Amino acid sequence: MSYRESLTKYIANFVNQLYVSGVRNVVISPGSRSTPLSLTFAEYDRFQLWVDIDERSAAFFALGMAKETREPVVLVCTSGTAAANYYPAIIEAHYSRIPLIVLTADRPHELRDVGAPQTINQLKIFGDYPKWFHEMALPSATVEMLRYARNQAKRAIQTALRPNCGVVHLNFPLREPLVPDFTLQDIWGEEEKSLTLRAVSQLSQPNVELLIDKLKNKKRGILVCGPQDRTELGSAIVDLAEAWGIPIFADPLSLLRNGKHSNKWIVEGYDAILKSKAVRDLLELDFIIRFGAMPVSKAYLQLLQEKQGIEHIVVEEGEGYREPVGVPTHFLNHCDGVHLCRDLASYPIKIDEKWSANWRKWNTYTKEVLMEKQDRLTEGLAVIGIQQTIPDHTVLFASNSMPIRDVDTFWFSNQQLVKVLANRGANGIDGIISTALGISATDKHTTLLIGDVSFLHSLNGLLLAKNYRLNLTIVLINNNGGGIFSFLPQAKDKSKHYELLFGTPQDIDIQKLAAAYDASYEKPENWTNYVRTLENSYQRGGLTIVEVETDRTENVSWHQQKWDLIKQYLLHELEGSDDVL
Amino acid sequence: MSYRESLTKYIANFVNQLYVSGVRNVVISPGSRSTPLSLTFAEYDRFQLWVDIDERSAAFFALGMAKETREPVVLVCTSGTAAANYYPAIIEAHYSRIPLIVLTADRPHELRDVGAPQTINQLKIFGDYPKWFHEMALPSATVEMLRYARNQAKRAIQTALRPNCGVVHLNFPLREPLVPDFTLQDIWGEEEKSLTLRAVSQLSQPNVELLIDKLKNKKRGILVCGPQDRTELGSAIVDLAEAWGIPIFADPLSLLRNGKHSNKWIVEGYDAILKSKAVRDLLELDFIIRFGAMPVSKAYLQLLQEKQGIEHIVVEEGEGYREPVGVPTHFLNHCDGVHLCRDLASYPIKIDEKWSANWRKWNTYTKEVLMEKQDRLTEGLAVIGIQQTIPDHTVLFASNSMPIRDVDTFWFSNQQLVKVLANRGANGIDGIISTALGISATDKHTTLLIGDVSFLHSLNGLLLAKNYRLNLTIVLINNNGGGIFSFLPQAKDKSKHYELLFGTPQDIDIQKLAAAYDASYEKPENWTNYVRTLENSYQRGGLTIVEVETDRTENVSWHQQKWDLIKQYLLHELEGSDDVL
Repeated sequence: MSYRESLTKYIANFVNQLYVSGVRNVVISPGSRSTPLSLTFAEYDRFQLWVDIDERSAAFFALGMAKETREPVVLVCTSGTAAANYYPAIIEAHYSRIPLIVLTADRPHELRDVGAPQTINQLKIFGDYPKWFHEMALPSATVEMLRYARNQAKRAIQTALRPNCGVVHLNFPLREPLVPDFTLQDIWGEEEKSLTLRAVSQLSQPNVELLIDKLKNKKRGILVCGPQDRTELGSAIVDLAEAWGIPIFADPLSLLRNGKHSNKWIVEGYDAILKSKAVRDLLELDFIIRFGAMPVSKAYLQLLQEKQGIEHIVVEEGEGYREPVGVPTHFLNHCDGVHLCRDLASYPIKIDEKWSANWRKWNTYTKEVLMEKQDRLTEGLAVIGIQQTIPDHTVLFASNSMPIRDVDTFWFSNQQLVKVLANRGANGIDGIISTALGISATDKHTTLLIGDVSFLHSLNGLLLAKNYRLNLTIVLINNNGGGIFSFLPQAKDKSKHYELLFGTPQDIDIQKLAAAYDASYEKPENWTNYVRTLENSYQRGGLTIVEVETDRTENVSWHQQKWDLIKQYLLHELEGSDDVL
Repeated sequence: MSYRESLTKYIANFVNQLYVSGVRNVVISPGSRSTPLSLTFAEYDRFQLWVDIDERSAAFFALGMAKETREPVVLVCTSGTAAANYYPAIIEAHYSRIPLIVLTADRPHELRDVGAPQTINQLKIFGDYPKWFHEMALPSATVEMLRYARNQAKRAIQTALRPNCGVVHLNFPLREPLVPDFTLQDIWGEEEKSLTLRAVSQLSQPNVELLIDKLKNKKRGILVCGPQDRTELGSAIVDLAEAWGIPIFADPLSLLRNGKHSNKWIVEGYDAILKSKAVRDLLELDFIIRFGAMPVSKAYLQLLQEKQGIEHIVVEEGEGYREPVGVPTHFLNHCDGVHLCRDLASYPIKIDEKWSANWRKWNTYTKEVLMEKQDRLTEGLAVIGIQQTIPDHTVLFASNSMPIRDVDTFWFSNQQLVKVLANRGANGIDGIISTALGISATDKHTTLLIGDVSFLHSLNGLLLAKNYRLNLTIVLINNNGGGIFSFLPQAKDKSKHYELLFGTPQDIDIQKLAAAYDASYEKPENWTNYVRTLENSYQRGGLTIVEVETDRTENVSWHQQKWDLIKQYLLHELEGSDDVL
């Protein structure tokens, strides 16, 4: 058998098995060494192929698709530094537990370490971040080796999907010739359906009686739901809250802030409520049961830090120890949260009714303060405008660092069928546009809330929007620089090095960039125009950039003013109360 | 002593020692965790600081500066995926042996692996690519620990500069508070000058007599100079060629194609001459002595592959085994090429005069064919136009993949004081604009020859050009896609998947992008306007984008036509010759 025939069949069997095992989307970056892979994916004709010249964007795009579909997405790139450009997205995928299959083409062994062009050491190039790295054998089409190729494809998918979901990296040494021969017969091999539809965690059995025993006589509890991606878990938490009469702190990425479920016990204003240390000091908290990852809220993190005496239970569907402040914690790893909620609901835990009622009252007040509208646009109103106009069955993607915090503060619980997503594995400002486009590519019009630094950082993503005419409404909060730093102690140094190191104004005319990528561009000057602009973008589809110009200093004082109002109200409530909570 | 005082002194001593040890340029990307480092670099006030929001661009920018100055450049970024964005440039720096000092800020140990925000595992995040990775101790200002901080700074510089030059990565765990207190007295510590000005390789002593013995009776030899960065090595090779009467194949990155030295023995047309297998078959080659890395030319690589019987000597100033075709090779590692050339020149090696004269004749003919001008612009004429107009004491930076090959073919040896540079460690198309800007930032007007895919890939680099008003003339060969692939076997598949996977036209209006980054933009339609446009850009300074629109198919046939002419001529020469060479 010629090498070309071996190459053709080996790669074709591998590709075929990926499809049979459930892969549907393949993101390819152009290159020569990867020709056997990319041509075979194209020839197979049943994948949705996406081609992006920038591997960094490509990987975040794949991440976005996998985030929304919860199915593994395949990445293909050529040899050399191409793969290194995947690294930021791979790290994000690791921490946010997103399944990705990375296929890198490589020179064969005899061309490594000898100065051959575009050849680098690709073995374990992503360090410990992939769940599985495997250097594939050289192409061969014996019965055994075709079985091997299929086995690796199957195993890659299963490994990526097994909790915690994550990244698999296969490196392909490929000799020339690189162009497969698709005129050959029977190259695809026999399809083998996997017995495992979706790998599940080996579930552990939590000791519910002991857990309940620990909560006995603890009357001031909170359920917390951080970032997580199971809709059914959200419902189960709501049912538990109803059974116990206990408030839920619902992170914007918990899937709990939107949807048809009851929002009676949902407290979404906890970040604003907990901002003040004086307020936190007056709160007496007995226990927290948390589902999902750590919430976005820094005030919540501070609360936890200050309440070291509480019972703190963290429910992990996979494996993890995500508790950054060192409070003694019971981690329930590999625990099915839905089952646990049902079990717990059957136990009669008595939550202090005043405690629960207060949280509902405070939350209502807080929302009123935050929701106050004015004609002049602010970063908060930008979020409220999206909530008011965003269509059902679409996605809001919030960038880091300020936008996700603004969403935390201003995205109130509602009945809309909208999903809120973000990259909260490593909280980077890189690859944001591409991630949002990856979500959009799953046929969901996506709204991206993003700051100007992050926008410029991930600008190359717009090539995908243009080339595939994806539906993305970008709300670009342009305060000409890094807005988040204005809230940090570094801002006190403003006089001297602040603008150079933290402000970093780029003074880019967004309208001109929009023109280069064929985007519709609008810059509404007030609330009314803003809402209309958003509505138009949803009706029109395609790529729209809505620029909202704000001022970093003004933004801080606007936020501060609201937080002060809320703080005064709460101190009055708590200090005036007979039973100090 | 307060933690803040410890932090301030620890970082200040480290930063001070970097300066004393010779660092002058620091490239910072904004972030919060890195505040102690970035503020201290700014406060020290003697560094040239460069701030770039995109770490990928920042790292290539630092690479460009270090490439031109041959001094280590410092990179500073915050925790999280920021560092991962450095990875492509770090790999390029490793393979092209460029000194970089990477300083990453990190959360302290108690905030790692516990779901703290923007926290990833940064230990050995760049795998084996850095020459040295060190996790710094937590800040402390005891006498011992200040000495430790200074020692690490000194050692970082020495390690990066010791052959092979490369990357050092120091990871800084940093607790809050993050803002140093510069009102404190005596924070910078005592300067300690290093005894080592620049680390040198432990030189090995080559056995020159044995080498000469191996070349005895070998009359058809070639000196080859691949990419290398020592001007004095170039002169020594020229002197050796003169002494022996032996041709030099001079790669465009050898520093030999430009300068005041004699170009009598320089053959720069060898790539075009060696393109045809029929021609190569007729050549009888006895030996090659190569300096520097493997040349860009693929034809040269093929020649080597086909002449397994020759004596093949590779002189490595550092350590390396850069010989990708498997021809038996004597590697002279850690060998001072200048000394070796002088030694060799004193031995009477007799090169066949006809052989040497023929190469000079063929080279002259080849250059005539290649140099032929026409009014319609081609990719070759784009190079010739640059050579005709580029000022002395400036740099031409050639992108991958097509531009460096076009420079190889069309950049003829000349007396200009121009340096030609490229990223030939891993030959990526990533970070090209930023690398060129890094060179420009050393006060050299830089001309960048780049294709459209590479231009769009590294577009973010233009933020640096704009923010620092750097002098860069970009000659953008726009053939709307990946031109290199048209020369490869994949092009035969053009009918079906070619444009999707390899052509990858992006259809971006470059003029609009230019406007967004405040660049002057020109699109000359013919030779005369092209030359004038280049001249204007050099006079004006700043950022100019000169778009040269070409057609990928036309380009291939234009190149092919010239190569055919040269092949016919050479076959006639070689076959008609009495003594077949």
